[in-house]
Formats: sequence, C-alpha cells, structure tokens
Amino acid sequence: MTLINANEELNHEVNESNSDGSKHDADLDHGERAFTADQVRVGQRAHDLDRAHVFHSWQAQGPFDPMTILAAEGPYIWDGEGQKLLDMSSQLVNTNIGHQHPKVVAAIQEQAAKLCTIAPQHVNDARSEAARLITDRAPGDLDHVFFTNGGADANEHAIRMARLHTGRTKVLSAYRSYHGGTQLAVNATGDPRRFASDYSAEGIVHFMPAYQYRSYFGATTEAEETQRALQHLEDMITLEGPSNIAALILETVPGTAGIYGPPAGYLEGVRELTTRYGIIYIADEVMAGFGRTGRWFAVDHWDVTPDLITFAKGVNSGYVPLGGVVISDAIFETFRDRVYPGGLTYSGHPLACAAAVATINAMDDEGMIGNAERLGRDIIGPALHEMAQRHPSIGDVRGMGCFWAVELVKDRTTREPLAAYGGSSPEMNRVIAAMKSGGVLPFANFNRIHVVPPLNTPDADVRFGLKVLDEALSIADEYVI
Amino acid sequence: MTLINANEELNHEVNESNSDGSKHDADLDHGERAFTADQVRVGQRAHDLDRAHVFHSWQAQGPFDPMTILAAEGPYIWDGEGQKLLDMSSQLVNTNIGHQHPKVVAAIQEQAAKLCTIAPQHVNDARSEAARLITDRAPGDLDHVFFTNGGADANEHAIRMARLHTGRTKVLSAYRSYHGGTQLAVNATGDPRRFASDYSAEGIVHFMPAYQYRSYFGATTEAEETQRALQHLEDMITLEGPSNIAALILETVPGTAGIYGPPAGYLEGVRELTTRYGIIYIADEVMAGFGRTGRWFAVDHWDVTPDLITFAKGVNSGYVPLGGVVISDAIFETFRDRVYPGGLTYSGHPLACAAAVATINAMDDEGMIGNAERLGRDIIGPALHEMAQRHPSIGDVRGMGCFWAVELVKDRTTREPLAAYGGSSPEMNRVIAAMKSGGVLPFANFNRIHVVPPLNTPDADVRFGLKVLDEALSIADEYVI
Ligand SMILES: Cc1ncc(COP(=O)(O)O)c(C=O)c1O
Ligand SMILES: Cc1ncc(COP(=O)(O)O)c(C=O)c1O
Repeated sequence: MTLINANEELNHEVNESNSDGSKHDADLDHGERAFTADQVRVGQRAHDLDRAHVFHSWQAQGPFDPMTILAAEGPYIWDGEGQKLLDMSSQLVNTNIGHQHPKVVAAIQEQAAKLCTIAPQHVNDARSEAARLITDRAPGDLDHVFFTNGGADANEHAIRMARLHTGRTKVLSAYRSYHGGTQLAVNATGDPRRFASDYSAEGIVHFMPAYQYRSYFGATTEAEETQRALQHLEDMITLEGPSNIAALILETVPGTAGIYGPPAGYLEGVRELTTRYGIIYIADEVMAGFGRTGRWFAVDHWDVTPDLITFAKGVNSGYVPLGGVVISDAIFETFRDRVYPGGLTYSGHPLACAAAVATINAMDDEGMIGNAERLGRDIIGPALHEMAQRHPSIGDVRGMGCFWAVELVKDRTTREPLAAYGGSSPEMNRVIAAMKSGGVLPFANFNRIHVVPPLNTPDADVRFGLKVLDEALSIADEYVI
Repeated sequence: MTLINANEELNHEVNESNSDGSKHDADLDHGERAFTADQVRVGQRAHDLDRAHVFHSWQAQGPFDPMTILAAEGPYIWDGEGQKLLDMSSQLVNTNIGHQHPKVVAAIQEQAAKLCTIAPQHVNDARSEAARLITDRAPGDLDHVFFTNGGADANEHAIRMARLHTGRTKVLSAYRSYHGGTQLAVNATGDPRRFASDYSAEGIVHFMPAYQYRSYFGATTEAEETQRALQHLEDMITLEGPSNIAALILETVPGTAGIYGPPAGYLEGVRELTTRYGIIYIADEVMAGFGRTGRWFAVDHWDVTPDLITFAKGVNSGYVPLGGVVISDAIFETFRDRVYPGGLTYSGHPLACAAAVATINAMDDEGMIGNAERLGRDIIGPALHEMAQRHPSIGDVRGMGCFWAVELVKDRTTREPLAAYGGSSPEMNRVIAAMKSGGVLPFANFNRIHVVPPLNTPDADVRFGLKVLDEALSIADEYVI
C-alpha cells in the first residue's frame, strides 16, 4: 500500500518569513492526512464515472476537467492527488461553519436514525425547532418560515407570495445580482447567467443598483451614490407604475456579483420607498445571511426590516439541501384563510432542518458570528487594504465579516477590469492557478477574487490564505498598464 | 412516566374474520411501540411551534391543523397521540422503500461522517456512483445525469435543455398533470394548482391527454382512445407549428392527477410523433420512476426511450432531497462545447447521492421492484377489482405495481365524481376520515383514493390497508344515486 502523504509531499508550508510574522499552523489545526493508494484509486474511479455520467452546472461538459475531492475538514479540502487546499471559497459560499463540523455531523446522524423524511403537511420537531431558531434571529415581525430546498426556489416562492399578497405583477430586481437557476429566479437575476434564458420574464424589470466603485450615476461620493441610486429607483417605480409593482428583490450585500455592500442610507431608502408605494421588499440573503457578514442577517447592519427574507446556504452550511423564506405577519395574514398556491415535496425536510438546528446552535455556542465580524475587521479588511497599497492591480477592496471582494484592474484610473463583465481572461486564470498551486481554493468571478472563508477559520489559516493571495497578485500586477 | 402504548390503547387490530382470511400481522412486523409522556410532550411542543412559525405548502395557514408525527418505520407512522397508521400514501408517494430503511440510514450516517457537502463543480464519489447506477437503469442512450434538489427544478432544467437544444420555445404539456411548484414547472402543470400562478407562461401549451375513463375524445375502447388522443396531439403540433415546439413533457403514468396509465400504443405514438417533428420528449417520472410501477422506470413497460427523464422522490425515497434529469447522448452533445446555462448550489449533493446509491442497491438486493409488480398483480389489483363489484361508488380502478387509483362516483352511468375537479367534498372527507380512524393514512385527490404503499410493504399490511379502504367505501356507497 503506497501512502501519499498530503502534508509531506504536497503540502504548502509557509515559512517563518510570513509578512505578518506568523507561522502558518494549519497542520497543527487539521493534522496530517495520508491517503492510501486505494483511496486515491476510488477518487480516480469517481473522476472517470463523473466524466462519463455527471452533467455539471454552468459548464461546457466536454473540456471541463473537474477537481476530485478526497476529503474535507474545517476550512480544508484535499484534492485527487492528496493536495491540501485552504477553501477560501467556502465551496459556493455555503460552508459557513467549515466542513464536517462534528456537532452538525452528529445531529444529522441522530436525525437519520430517528426520522429521515416526512411529508410537508405533517408536524416534525426538527422543522418546528429550525423555524423557531430562524424566526428568533430574523428582524421585526418576520415570524414564519416557508422551507424550500435551496435559494432559487426560495426566491421563486417569495415572488409568488408578493404577487398574490399585492395583487400586482411586476418585480423590480437589480442588475449585477444573482437569484438562482430556475426560470423565474434566473429571470430576476441581473448577471449574464440570465442571458440564455431571457424569456417568460413577464413583469421582471431591472434597475441600476448602488455600486459605488463603478457608479451608474456618475457619483463620486458615498452620499451622492446613495442619493442618486435612490432617485433612480424612485424614477423607475414612477415610470413602471407603482400600482403595478408587487415586489422589489435585492441582495442585501450582492454576492457573486461582487460583494458590493450598499452605501450608507441606501437600504433605509429602499425600505422607505417600497413601504411608501406598497411594494413588498424581498431581501435575498441566500449568500449574505447566517453570519457571513458578521451578523445573523445582513440587514441587521442597517436596521432594516424587509417583508420577506430568502435564505439557504449558511442556514445549515449546505450539509443537507435547505432554503426558505422568512415571512412577515402581514403576508402570513394573506394566507391565513386563503390557500398558498405553492409547495414542494421536501418543504421542511427533517434531516435538513436538524442540520439547521445544529448549525445555528453551533454558531451561537462557538461565537462564530462575532468571530466573522472580528476576522473582517481585524484581519481580512486590514490585510486587503494594505495589499491595495502595494498591488497596482487592486482597483477596489470592499466587504465585511467573512465576505470580501478584491476587484482587479489593468488601470486604476480607467478602472479597466482584468476580465470583462461576464467573462474570464488568461490574466485572471493565471492568478487563480497561482492561488491553487499555493494551496488555496479561491472564489473568482470575472475580474474579482472573493475572500469568503468559513466563519470559524483559524486566524493563522486566514493569514495563510491572504499571503497566498498576496503572492498571486504579483501576477496581476504584471498586466497593469 | 406515563406510557402511552400505541398498540394497547389505540391500535387497529384486524381480527381473524378478514375477508381474505388473513390475520393482519403488522404488529409482528413492526413491533410494539410505546411513547413516553415526554415524547408526547415533545410532539405537542413541535405542534405549537409549527402553528406559530411554519408556513405550509398548498394550505390556508389558519384553519389547518396538521398531524404530528412522533415516529415512522417501514410502512408505518405514529401520530401525535401515538396512534399507529399504515402509510398507504408513502408520504407524497416518495418513500418507495418505506421509512427508516436500516441500510439507507446507515449509508447516510457513513456519508455524513465522511463528507456532507461539496460544490457541484468538483468530483465526488457518491455522486459519480449514483449517476452510474441511475444511467445503468435508464433506457437507451440516457447516459448522463444532471442532479437537482427535487422534481420541480428537474423539470425546469429539462425544459431549458430542450429549448436550448432545439432552439425552439414552445412546450406541450398535458392537462391533468403535475410538474412542480416553481413558476415554469407550475405553468407546465395541468391541474388546478396552476391557476393562481398562470402568467409568465410564454410558450406553454396544454393538450388533452389520453384518459380513457373520462375520454376527451368520446372514445369507447382503448384502441379508439389511443388513436384519437394521438390524432389530437398531432393536430396540436400542426396547429402550434412543429418548428416552434421544443419539448413535450408528459408523466409516463400521471400521478397525483389520477394514476391514469397510458392506453396501449399511446406512448409509442408520442415517441413517434415527437421524433418525427424534432420535439424533445421529456418523461416526468418524478412519481412513477424508481420502482413505483414495478419497473425501474415506468417507460420500461412500453419500451419507449424519451430524450430526457426527470426523477426525484423514489430515487432515494426522499431521505435526503434529490432530483434530476437523465440526459440522452444527443442532448449531452449540445452542451459538450457550449456552456449549459443553469445550475444550483446543491447539484449532486453527496449526502443525497449516497442515499440514492444505498436506496437503489437495497431495491436490487431485496427485489423490491419485482415485489412492487407482484403486489400490484396478485394483491392490490385483484382486491380493488373485487371491491369494484361490491361498491357501486367505485367508478374506475386502474394501476400497476404499487401505483393504483380508485375513482369514486355518485353514479356509474354519468360518472359524476364524488368531489368536483379541483375540489374536496364532505363525502370524500368522510371516506378519508374513516380510513384514518381505521388506522390507514390514505392519499386522496379530488374524487380519488390512491393506493400507493411502499414497494416493500409486507403482504399482510397491504391486505390490512385494502380492508380498511373496503370498509370506508361503504360510506361512499351511501351517496350513490
Ligand atoms: C444571492 C443568491 N441567491 C440565490 C442563489 C441560488 O441558490 P441555489 O443555488 O441554492 O438555488 C444564490 C446561489 O449562489 C445566491 O448567491
Ligand atoms: C409527476 C411529478 N412531477 C414533479 C413533481 C414535483 O416534485 P417536487 O415536489 O420535488 O418539486 C411531483 C411532485 O409531486 C410529481 O408528482
């Protein structure tokens, strides 16, 4: 039996000369891991079967050579060759508590032994408890939860609720947003993933978001961006006809589209406008919710209470598929005596809800929300801002908690991006490859690298990941004009 | 500690005088079960929290008083009072292997210990193996699987694939069908659940299905029904314009809409017409697939190979949310070099796929598919046909495997249903209540009772369920004119 020792042969050691003086102690945190030749062969067979039979999301199926994952623990994964990688992407920004959290694994195992599945029309204790924990943490009178399987169907149902509650059809949604892959959710989406499916979109209208770094309004200050973006939104409402508009759907901090947090006052203005015009305000917190920004819900940063909040991912770190809509009392009232015409077989799935209960409790017990805030404030934010001073390729750094974006440009003055909107580029691909060979799995989109580790990533590991990013950015710097 | 002994106090004993002479031995199969006062209190608290915080599928939230489930095993569930009920509904016709199958529970626990979640772009062995097992069992060249979370998103993605593959927009879908609760899936649906969401349905066109008992074509024989239904379908294709039509989506055996299996020759005709006009044939086997009809896929009964098959439910009995699309080589080719513009965070979820692997293997090892066929042929079918001779309220009996419908009427000549299309009725409610108090959880829809137990339900339990149905039907008989 040949042992491939990931740490001995392939590990990325960071030596004492780290810029911040810290020794990278990931090995201490996560131990040695050796894979047997058999385990590696299982991985190879999985790869062969994958190429023969698995059809992947958002890919051309032919040229695609996916990475095999042999194991995962905490913020780390091990690839098909046994290489250890720090997962600075939290997969698809969903493993907020990292991989294989022992309490959540145990809770899943216990619930599996007790009751794996039950139809949505019955009462189940795991589901009830998950609903209690979620509504306890949700702002205002958002007291009810409709559970779905993921983020896309959460948004689909939120929009349906808003339409039936208001009796109106139109939905305002921001450009530079992502709301999911099913037809209505992708229609509401404001990124290029919508383009191929851009029909059957009755009533979906896109508006320009507040996005200060590339202001659509020629704003040069935060206050100006807020004021002009809100003016634009009100103009859109007027021109589309307020009495036609059922909902406004908005990621509190838009995620894949660039982690561009709202400028001060913007969300308060959105709340005020939607209230004034009787429009349901749907906050999509599929990616931003459950601690990602350093609060339970991202809206907590601005003390805004939407009418509906959609969630998924972080609610149980994706250990079991789960999503949902948190619903205000007023919208609940609409469906008190009137049938809600929507549903799904696995709404409130016991195994998924048990994982949510354990995840939320683990986050509480281990102070993960506060830790996320601290990591952003004390480590990630300062490090990225410091890098921006040294790397001319960094156009913008922004974020909070464990939710950060670095926008790469060829020219800081023109802000010409290192990859065009909707595309990748050889330049970006080199940066990504350098991070991977440095031992970090990054989250990249267009001209951005997102720094989105699990909320409980040890400080030293976060520093290691930032160091690898720092090194990779020298490649980006080569392209600066 | 007060013990509530479900079997002592509340159990439904069937005595020796069963019509078929068998003694109901469910107690022997599933043992005694006693709940402590504490367990009952947990259930009560779950019920209170549910009413406070859980928003339910397809319900008016106010008047609804959901049943609490304290436990489930095999074909049985225990309600909040500890009453044991035979689950003749398989929940929402998904627990094809019954509740808490030890091999599948163990597989979930093992996978949870190993790797709960991983992003869809990576390779995972549980996912690869599930794809292999599914494509091995799928007909023809359906060699690729796109995994989703459930049935609705499976259908959404199948329709998208068909549209992009053909470059056409329209989708033909049958009335009296159900395809899911998200916007596009509910638009494709042909039952009243569509009514409240009947917009943004660009290109969806409904046709009349072959449904012999209430023929839309005035047919009086099976051959006539097939011939006329196919003629109607071809007329629809001609009138809608063949070159506009991307897909035809059809439940192989329509489920919730009435388990009305296709008349001989119908599906072969559908395949021939769709091939002739270059239309993608999507078979929705979310409910009919994975053994429900006594074959792996329901199309196997007719030796028909669709271009896409959608599945969910039975693939892992719903133990972990999972659905998907099985894809032909030709459609795969379309996305070999072109990006498939669709996806979801939990596509190919390891825990869900591990449950599918274990479920499919357990079905094989324990001969469940053959057992389902035998139950239908030797027990359920004969018993229902025999009842039809004694109960004037039975208008029609139809089905196969563990997939049967009994259609109740007030008048066999006019076929006036016991509840109107789209509604319930006091008459049906009495029948349902009688079954419940007899110890059986039925699946009811409009004027129909569906007999859809798990595929591995012991014979004696199936007989017990049929006996309770038999008794409840005397109530229906009272309303026969
Ligand atoms: C903000 C946002 N909304 C919705 C979704 C869709 O969630 P899912 O992939 O679970 O359907 C995502 C997924 O990335 C997201 O980031
Ligand atoms: C035939 C059919 N298609 C699709 C669906 C939708 O599946 P899901 O509820 O998992 O979205 C169902 C659910 O009952 C179904 O029976």
